[in-house]
Amino acid sequence: MKPVNVGIVGLGTVGTGTFNVLNRNREDIARRAGREIVVTHVGARRDNGFATPGAKVSRDIFAVVNDPEVDIVVELIGGTTVARDLVMKAIENGKHVVTANKALIAQYGNEVFAAAQKKGVNVAFEAAVAGGIPIIKAIREGLAANRIAWVAGIINGTGNFILTEMRDKGRDFNDVLKEAQALGYAEADPTFDVEGIDAAHKLTILASIAFGIPLQFEKAFTEGITKIGRDDVAYAEELGYRVKHLGVARRTANGVELRVHPTLIPEARLIANVHGVMNAVMVMSDAVGPTFYSGRGAGSEPTASAVVADVIDVARVLTTDPTNRVPHLAFQADSLSDLPILPIEEVETAYYLRMDVKDHPGVLAKIASVLSEGAINIEAIIQKDQADETAPVPLIMLTRKVQEKKMNAALDKIRKLDVLVNDITRIRVEALSQ
Amino acid sequence: MKPVNVGIVGLGTVGTGTFNVLNRNREDIARRAGREIVVTHVGARRDNGFATPGAKVSRDIFAVVNDPEVDIVVELIGGTTVARDLVMKAIENGKHVVTANKALIAQYGNEVFAAAQKKGVNVAFEAAVAGGIPIIKAIREGLAANRIAWVAGIINGTGNFILTEMRDKGRDFNDVLKEAQALGYAEADPTFDVEGIDAAHKLTILASIAFGIPLQFEKAFTEGITKIGRDDVAYAEELGYRVKHLGVARRTANGVELRVHPTLIPEARLIANVHGVMNAVMVMSDAVGPTFYSGRGAGSEPTASAVVADVIDVARVLTTDPTNRVPHLAFQADSLSDLPILPIEEVETAYYLRMDVKDHPGVLAKIASVLSEGAINIEAIIQKDQADETAPVPLIMLTRKVQEKKMNAALDKIRKLDVLVNDITRIRVEALSQ
Repeated sequence: MKPVNVGIVGLGTVGTGTFNVLNRNREDIARRAGREIVVTHVGARRDNGFATPGAKVSRDIFAVVNDPEVDIVVELIGGTTVARDLVMKAIENGKHVVTANKALIAQYGNEVFAAAQKKGVNVAFEAAVAGGIPIIKAIREGLAANRIAWVAGIINGTGNFILTEMRDKGRDFNDVLKEAQALGYAEADPTFDVEGIDAAHKLTILASIAFGIPLQFEKAFTEGITKIGRDDVAYAEELGYRVKHLGVARRTANGVELRVHPTLIPEARLIANVHGVMNAVMVMSDAVGPTFYSGRGAGSEPTASAVVADVIDVARVLTTDPTNRVPHLAFQADSLSDLPILPIEEVETAYYLRMDVKDHPGVLAKIASVLSEGAINIEAIIQKDQADETAPVPLIMLTRKVQEKKMNAALDKIRKLDVLVNDITRIRVEALSQ
Repeated sequence: MKPVNVGIVGLGTVGTGTFNVLNRNREDIARRAGREIVVTHVGARRDNGFATPGAKVSRDIFAVVNDPEVDIVVELIGGTTVARDLVMKAIENGKHVVTANKALIAQYGNEVFAAAQKKGVNVAFEAAVAGGIPIIKAIREGLAANRIAWVAGIINGTGNFILTEMRDKGRDFNDVLKEAQALGYAEADPTFDVEGIDAAHKLTILASIAFGIPLQFEKAFTEGITKIGRDDVAYAEELGYRVKHLGVARRTANGVELRVHPTLIPEARLIANVHGVMNAVMVMSDAVGPTFYSGRGAGSEPTASAVVADVIDVARVLTTDPTNRVPHLAFQADSLSDLPILPIEEVETAYYLRMDVKDHPGVLAKIASVLSEGAINIEAIIQKDQADETAPVPLIMLTRKVQEKKMNAALDKIRKLDVLVNDITRIRVEALSQ
């Protein structure tokens, strides 16, 4: 069978990994795919010294998408400006596209997939979510029999590394962040990672393929991990929980929850035991029940693993009638549903609350009575005595489930009680049991 | 698009689950598959009262595979006699086949796939391994870029339920087995489950798709969990390990290890924290590193989830050139490799040893010196004092890695020392770290 020609655009971490994996495992990949898969053209704006034997190199990266010999364009430059133009041009030229670009798919996927469908080409993006874990394939194909209730994931390795270090070593957020930057796990500007934007890109994609809805990144709720203290991590532990930066997409009677925020998870769940830079996704479905997937969510060859799997998949369906292929968003493009994304105020969760209160008699009673008036039930309380009587007393509460707007109203009332020394720390709790 | 007609043969636990899932999620499945998937014919030798509205019912199950209207035959009768004839007949008739039958695939898969390839039809078997976890798809497609080093799995829910109960409640094997039988988790004859035969069927399949070798069930090594005592489970815990009935398929320089046996696993591994009837599979690959998959490995709808996913997959490739489909055993049939399966004596692992010894001075020294002569290094020792001085003393050792035949030779020497009260309990240890 005729070899499949691949053009790689971008020779950074993932691009070089993809080239290396395709070359090193060339023989095994051919045994699997039933044909050779060959990198014939590489586009890299700068020479970084990485050698690509056998492949033509262009400094004009658009030369790759305009190369008539290239069957599949692999976009690995990242970002949403040039990458978007490049992918759209590749589609216009009738090329299939494989990309690891979560931002591009989450923000412009609807447009990209519509163009691809019109041209009868594939756009594959396994590497865009949870790196080397084949989670897109698992949800889109492996769980295709199921009605999916929710998806929850640790889908940003940097954030998970920071939270793991805070727990294991009792370190502070800023201290660990600096180390993560030194180790290359976090960017100089860590906003995308620690504020949950990167995770929200990935969660947006997971929600679409789980529920059959268009990509709606702009409606995702994100809250970062910058305000989590090492004390919160320790109190959570005392209550039997781990703090994770979790993305949750849940189908409810009123719409879809789409949210990324620090979350307390019972320590018995497998996902609570995913440490360091590892990623994990848990899916709750009606037929199979819970399934769980874990692995490396970033890095050169872990991401390349997903990119190359996509290349092989696309190579297999090159000659297939496009209507027979797995739809980009799991459901046929003309049958996506218009389930609304719920605002965070409509979401119902349990809460962990930490209030540093003045050490006066009656403070607990006052706070408890506000919560009680708001029909918020308390599941557990920890009150820590301080050695220094003038120091504020940390009061930790675990509540039962309540709608976020009711919790907001109660917290506003508590703030007015004049008993707080600092603002309230509030972390949502997910049991992930059903 | 024309609906795809499915014939289900066998209306037991999985057959009824498959019918229910296809009906309940019919609309979502059509939105995913781009066409209706309809059960038009059901074959069941006896009437068990389960209604199959819309489907013709035949008591002669071969009527389903001879029905010209049926596109895909779903074989769910189990066993390897009638099921084998039925599947071969379906292939002969040009039908695609979906099966959950691990024994059939592990023992007769080579023949079945050869016939299917000749006819240009698909035989899909996701449900044969780890129930609803899409592990076949993950390895065969999701990890297709990788050279796989090893696969390790808890792939028998009955065994894992028994070991979990023994650990959690300090119960004895026979006691828990009786409960498992009462709960319907274990058969009246539990041999297939507790002796590791069922797990070896599944492991045989996993090894083939991981390494690209023919199915060789007859060469799999199996050791059951019947001799594991609750004390062993407790000692393992003390050493930081959990006892699991693990299937391990590993590629070594000399060949492939293919073995199912009780195994000590460090408690920090996710797979050591898979409890009750849950299944899990860990895969170590060169590009992505470790990935981990967990979910329900048995039961009506969890298994149906995998069966229906296969039906959708097969429906998609009905019109695809057969040479472009994912190969049955992940690698093209003409490029399977002839890596030998290693006899267990050639396998190298660490060991947990429990010896109930006579309480005499010098016993430990004698045993240690035999191990030392055999170049077997000891990593940890637990020696328990007994209240009753005449009672035997349990001596627990954790060794470093050594070839099984060297361990066998050393244990034979220890048996001749005349210090043992009972025979030695030996459990293999797997670090699962690289």
